[in-house]
Amino acid sequence: MARIVMKFGGTSVADIDHIRRAACHVVREVEDGHQVAVIVSAMAGRTNELVDLTRRAAAMHDAREYDAIVASGEQVTAGLMAIALQDRGISARSFAGWQVPILTDNVHGAARITGIDPKVLNERLENNQVCIITGFQGVSPLGRITTLGRGGSDTSAVAVAAAINADRCDIYTDVDGVYTADPRVVPKAKRLSFVSFEEMLEMASLGAKVLMARSVEVAMAQKVRLAVRSTFDDPASAQVGPDNKPGVPGTLVCDEDEIMEKQFVSGITLAKSEAKITLRDVMDEPGVAAEVFGALADEHIVVDMIVQNISDDGKLTDITFTVPDAEYDKAISTLNRAGDRFTCRSISGSRGGAKISVIGVGMRSHAGIAAMMFRALAEKGINIQLITTSEIKTSVLIDDEYAELAVRALHTYYGLDADDT
Amino acid sequence: MARIVMKFGGTSVADIDHIRRAACHVVREVEDGHQVAVIVSAMAGRTNELVDLTRRAAAMHDAREYDAIVASGEQVTAGLMAIALQDRGISARSFAGWQVPILTDNVHGAARITGIDPKVLNERLENNQVCIITGFQGVSPLGRITTLGRGGSDTSAVAVAAAINADRCDIYTDVDGVYTADPRVVPKAKRLSFVSFEEMLEMASLGAKVLMARSVEVAMAQKVRLAVRSTFDDPASAQVGPDNKPGVPGTLVCDEDEIMEKQFVSGITLAKSEAKITLRDVMDEPGVAAEVFGALADEHIVVDMIVQNISDDGKLTDITFTVPDAEYDKAISTLNRAGDRFTCRSISGSRGGAKISVIGVGMRSHAGIAAMMFRALAEKGINIQLITTSEIKTSVLIDDEYAELAVRALHTYYGLDADDT
Repeated sequence: MARIVMKFGGTSVADIDHIRRAACHVVREVEDGHQVAVIVSAMAGRTNELVDLTRRAAAMHDAREYDAIVASGEQVTAGLMAIALQDRGISARSFAGWQVPILTDNVHGAARITGIDPKVLNERLENNQVCIITGFQGVSPLGRITTLGRGGSDTSAVAVAAAINADRCDIYTDVDGVYTADPRVVPKAKRLSFVSFEEMLEMASLGAKVLMARSVEVAMAQKVRLAVRSTFDDPASAQVGPDNKPGVPGTLVCDEDEIMEKQFVSGITLAKSEAKITLRDVMDEPGVAAEVFGALADEHIVVDMIVQNISDDGKLTDITFTVPDAEYDKAISTLNRAGDRFTCRSISGSRGGAKISVIGVGMRSHAGIAAMMFRALAEKGINIQLITTSEIKTSVLIDDEYAELAVRALHTYYGLDADDT
Repeated sequence: MARIVMKFGGTSVADIDHIRRAACHVVREVEDGHQVAVIVSAMAGRTNELVDLTRRAAAMHDAREYDAIVASGEQVTAGLMAIALQDRGISARSFAGWQVPILTDNVHGAARITGIDPKVLNERLENNQVCIITGFQGVSPLGRITTLGRGGSDTSAVAVAAAINADRCDIYTDVDGVYTADPRVVPKAKRLSFVSFEEMLEMASLGAKVLMARSVEVAMAQKVRLAVRSTFDDPASAQVGPDNKPGVPGTLVCDEDEIMEKQFVSGITLAKSEAKITLRDVMDEPGVAAEVFGALADEHIVVDMIVQNISDDGKLTDITFTVPDAEYDKAISTLNRAGDRFTCRSISGSRGGAKISVIGVGMRSHAGIAAMMFRALAEKGINIQLITTSEIKTSVLIDDEYAELAVRALHTYYGLDADDT
């Protein structure tokens, strides 16, 4: 007997037929003797409809009212899931966030979970009742409904799993796991059976849309083993078991130590539409970077890669960084207006970059993985504009039009292609 | 300064434009210096959509889950109304039933309000904040969301008005008041400026769909003065004031004593598709009627008019009653199967009756009002099949095809036609 949290996203509960199919997965776990808590998102499209209504009601809106409106979507799905399970003879009931309660801070629209009282859930689970909980929401210290921001249902699932000491948290979605690369770009991409929290976090941050980065952070901190699998799999099929059997459907995201055969590289990610901006001859002294990026942060412009070289003479240096293409004009004009905060000889840049990243915990112990990357790109005649690295990741910025070519070349070069296995 | 509850039904908040229009009425009251609580229904059609989803999820469903699902509709409207008011510069916030809290019993789907804690609402109102409250719902002693059943938002409004000692409860709807008869049947029907609780209760029970009977009962018991007026009136127009000025828009439903010029008859109502059933030669002894109507109640068949005459010989009597046409077959077969509970010579009946009622508190003090009714019908050659009376109402059952003719004739006969005023 295990205790399992199952999370179904919007496309998995898009309509009544989908909800019934998702319920089949729950029935399987219950019939296998497990205690099950279910986290649901709103039916696909409903959250957008509600957001649209809110926007049409007034140009400016109270985030507290926005939350009360938008949170209604999950309430509907949770009730429908309870009914669908009861129809299959399973004891089940729905809980809105405030009924658990899932406590959050007061930051409406982007609240953080501060605590979950597991008492009621534990009682119900021990009596073999399936608890269905609205994802994406909680209740503030003032008793008002809060939402966690887009994709928050993954975080709800992980937080509930931690609160009730679940053995596993299964994230059901419309893809069947985490891949070595985006299969639309790399047809030979393989599904990973296992991936470490650290790798998943890099992949999530870099645009693999399978899991929200925040939920992976919480899972890593709370040691919640995550499984990513498809709602559209045969519900009768084997599951990602606590015994970590190979060949099971889906991907298990877990502690690095649990993964026996680590690969040097787990995945190649791609983020397009990155614009680069270079400030030439900035004074190389403490506080300058803070002024430059402070000016951008004040305008809510998200900066991604940042590169600053050691200056030749210790006086002047160049700073280069990337922003989303859509923010490029705003970033340039913000920097031009911020002339009193720092000085530089010129501000220049261009749109149309692509960031390619190679991710793998194997980088920690194996030298030469970054060098392989540069060699693979050189062989295809692809020029590298920027390089940044972290402990388990190497990223480069290249010209947008080489993006897919680069990802496929690296995928082959690191031996990730499906045919190679 | 008065304290006012304003209730907007589904057609009054059907979309964003309607919600903005409803907000204009609230703005007017606030600008006139009043403290305002607003009760909202779900956007027209949304409750039906949610009920439909629930039905499609499973043939049988848990009423507690049904309530959690369906109650989401009002939550959305309340938030949108708060945003629309804030956009007009008005301080406003939404409350779900459980946030007030509006306490109910455990009868999910048809709960009764057992209490409303006015503390939070009173504090907000005294600080001139508009409180927008979800109609139709509350929270059970077990902390689960309940709904009051269809039309329950009127009851919510009246109960909130009683709890906060409101000076008036305005029910905004898609008609501009209570009429002497259904204007689709009687083009000369007039809007009533005033109507007593008792009369309104009879009219609501008899099919005038302006107010739900339950809400009028509560208003009468709690002495809450109700006004019925149209959302589609010019929001800038005068209101039904606490000073009961004549000529104001809408209809004020209030205590009989408040109405200075009482009319003998306030309205004529019509309910079609009534079937009559006659049991011949039933034993005239105690308990027989209880068995007959007990058998029907066990099958949830609602019986309307009941007539039993004194028997000639003290031994055998006839009982006649009406049921909705749609229940006729079921009622006949139920009575035939219940042969062991009572004996009678025959069970017969027919569909296609119409019940016409004349309502007016004036009947208490004026003789001959019922006689006028019979004379008016006789002049048109309309045969009366059944007669029942209450203190302020006389009802007859006639053949369906004479229904509209009868209503128009009575409307003229009692001097209610618009041209007569």
